[in-house]
Amino acid sequence: MRYIVIMAGGAGTRLWPLSRQGTPKQLLPLVGGKSLLRLSFDRALAVVPPERIMVVTGAAYASEVRDELPEMPPANLLGEPVGRDSLGAVSWPAAVLAELDPDAVIAQLTADHIIEPLDAFVTSLKTAFEVAEAMPDTLVTLGVVPTSPHTGYGYLHKGDPISGFPEVCQVSKFREKPDLPTAQRYLSSGDYWWNSGMFVWRAATLLSQVAQLVPDMHAGVLELARNPGSVADVFPLLPKASVDFAIMEPVSRGQGSARIAAVALPVSWRDVGGFDSLADALPTDASGNVVEGQAVVSDADGNLIYNTDGDGHVVAVLGLSGMVIVHTPTATLVTTRDRAEHVKALVETIRAEVGPQFT
Amino acid sequence: MRYIVIMAGGAGTRLWPLSRQGTPKQLLPLVGGKSLLRLSFDRALAVVPPERIMVVTGAAYASEVRDELPEMPPANLLGEPVGRDSLGAVSWPAAVLAELDPDAVIAQLTADHIIEPLDAFVTSLKTAFEVAEAMPDTLVTLGVVPTSPHTGYGYLHKGDPISGFPEVCQVSKFREKPDLPTAQRYLSSGDYWWNSGMFVWRAATLLSQVAQLVPDMHAGVLELARNPGSVADVFPLLPKASVDFAIMEPVSRGQGSARIAAVALPVSWRDVGGFDSLADALPTDASGNVVEGQAVVSDADGNLIYNTDGDGHVVAVLGLSGMVIVHTPTATLVTTRDRAEHVKALVETIRAEVGPQFT
Repeated sequence: MRYIVIMAGGAGTRLWPLSRQGTPKQLLPLVGGKSLLRLSFDRALAVVPPERIMVVTGAAYASEVRDELPEMPPANLLGEPVGRDSLGAVSWPAAVLAELDPDAVIAQLTADHIIEPLDAFVTSLKTAFEVAEAMPDTLVTLGVVPTSPHTGYGYLHKGDPISGFPEVCQVSKFREKPDLPTAQRYLSSGDYWWNSGMFVWRAATLLSQVAQLVPDMHAGVLELARNPGSVADVFPLLPKASVDFAIMEPVSRGQGSARIAAVALPVSWRDVGGFDSLADALPTDASGNVVEGQAVVSDADGNLIYNTDGDGHVVAVLGLSGMVIVHTPTATLVTTRDRAEHVKALVETIRAEVGPQFT
Repeated sequence: MRYIVIMAGGAGTRLWPLSRQGTPKQLLPLVGGKSLLRLSFDRALAVVPPERIMVVTGAAYASEVRDELPEMPPANLLGEPVGRDSLGAVSWPAAVLAELDPDAVIAQLTADHIIEPLDAFVTSLKTAFEVAEAMPDTLVTLGVVPTSPHTGYGYLHKGDPISGFPEVCQVSKFREKPDLPTAQRYLSSGDYWWNSGMFVWRAATLLSQVAQLVPDMHAGVLELARNPGSVADVFPLLPKASVDFAIMEPVSRGQGSARIAAVALPVSWRDVGGFDSLADALPTDASGNVVEGQAVVSDADGNLIYNTDGDGHVVAVLGLSGMVIVHTPTATLVTTRDRAEHVKALVETIRAEVGPQFT
């Protein structure tokens, strides 16, 4: 049976002060009033019913996530007491689902991006399920067809095509985030896709690779699956690793017993990692500003102006370009779009100097 | 007897959102927690007792002004129901004081500037009183000895010295705000002082000039002095004019029966008209930022960051120069120091588009 697991961990500190300790990025109503998690869940619903969707998130956010996804059975939420990077977020649900359904095939989706259009996404995801079902020894990764020489993503080097599946190929190499000339070469060659961080695999196949390559993780998640009450004790002891680094890359190099295939994902795939990319993802007004909430903007363009403080507060902007101005009831951020990626360090300063209640 | 009248009219819209309809610039605790009005009153107290200090202000601000100046008898506050420019603000108190004391000599002081040091100011003011007392037909103006070719001030052209009073001279001409080359010529010539808008005169002498040059104003303020209950009816009918344009300049050209003298005011005289000049007037931190209230500032210099929202709100600034960022509980302004002079027009937009409660 097909299942979808949405990975919704991470705090999203680069969106402070919209994101806060209790309200991570995935739960913010950033896009037309919907959260990135809700948008991801809606995409999943186009492929499987809500009973077969799981969410892995920080235990601290569990009740907010349940409120956001009322259709999902409460037991389908896996709350991590501490972050264990993406290997934990794929291995734990695989172990849980393999206990319930030895033939479980799982799509691991992220909740960090705006993906359009839906039908192209659904077509690619269904193809990926078919590949994983037809070739039980294969870990399938979704490769976004690149539209720019982006230096913030990893890349997949496409290998030989896989017969019977157009737009599916082996992966010969994973590439870390490149510099700009390298990214330009990747783009013009047509031989590379962006590594989306989304995967489809049989639960049993993933677990066998984890057992071979990271045996401590395998033993831990089996224990979690058999004894759900052990989470608080067992989870913090799991090794901290990314699924790319610990599984996908070694398997692509011939370690492990499986192989890697990639399915093309020909979509608009917009990161919402920080304010600059958020501004790119939201509609602009006639002056080229992204304005959310109550604001008066004069002789200004290319700014992101975000006011969550309702009708009781006005943000007034005069004569500025390329700025990020975010106002919430307890904190106001003013920086440039270029510098907005560095908000994370500023949040650490605020935590230390002003107090954790502001972060 | 000597009296001091402090002119504290005007809304100070260029300091929005610090200044608001109910809280004009003169009442804001801008300088070491003291308001410009309080600083001006403290200067006046160095020369006369509080019973002989009057304040002319907008009637809407009367109770706030009384709270700010508890030593001053409540009757010494003249509340203008509407603004009638500076001629109303000098003629009304002159008429009131002339009724009480035919020999009243009045210093008309402003509350728009930071003036240092106090002893130089007091010395000049006492000299100006002595000149007005010794030469009953003379309107005395205080001329700030210029320290820069400022294009935002009017200038006085010094005429012949007045014997018996060093640093006192006749005024041969008033000059409007000059362009920069003209201001540089004025400065290097040594023949010009800044027109401070502060005056000392016998009440009777001022009133006789007003009677000759603006008879409607004269008749109106006599009525106000004799019948204080008539303010709401009479004041709005007074002509609207500046004392410079309607009295000082014509008298300097030989109209009227008095003459003009100027007393040197060798002080640091810093306008607090807008945020740029406010930033110049306040102390900077080690990074060259003026920071008031709770803020975290990283990799930024030359900014004015002003947060009046207490401990419950933090303003975070990353990677900016030359900005003005002002946060209050109901409004946040973000602009540049260069553009801050144009906030007045923005406030009109806010009043129209968002509502007068924010202005």
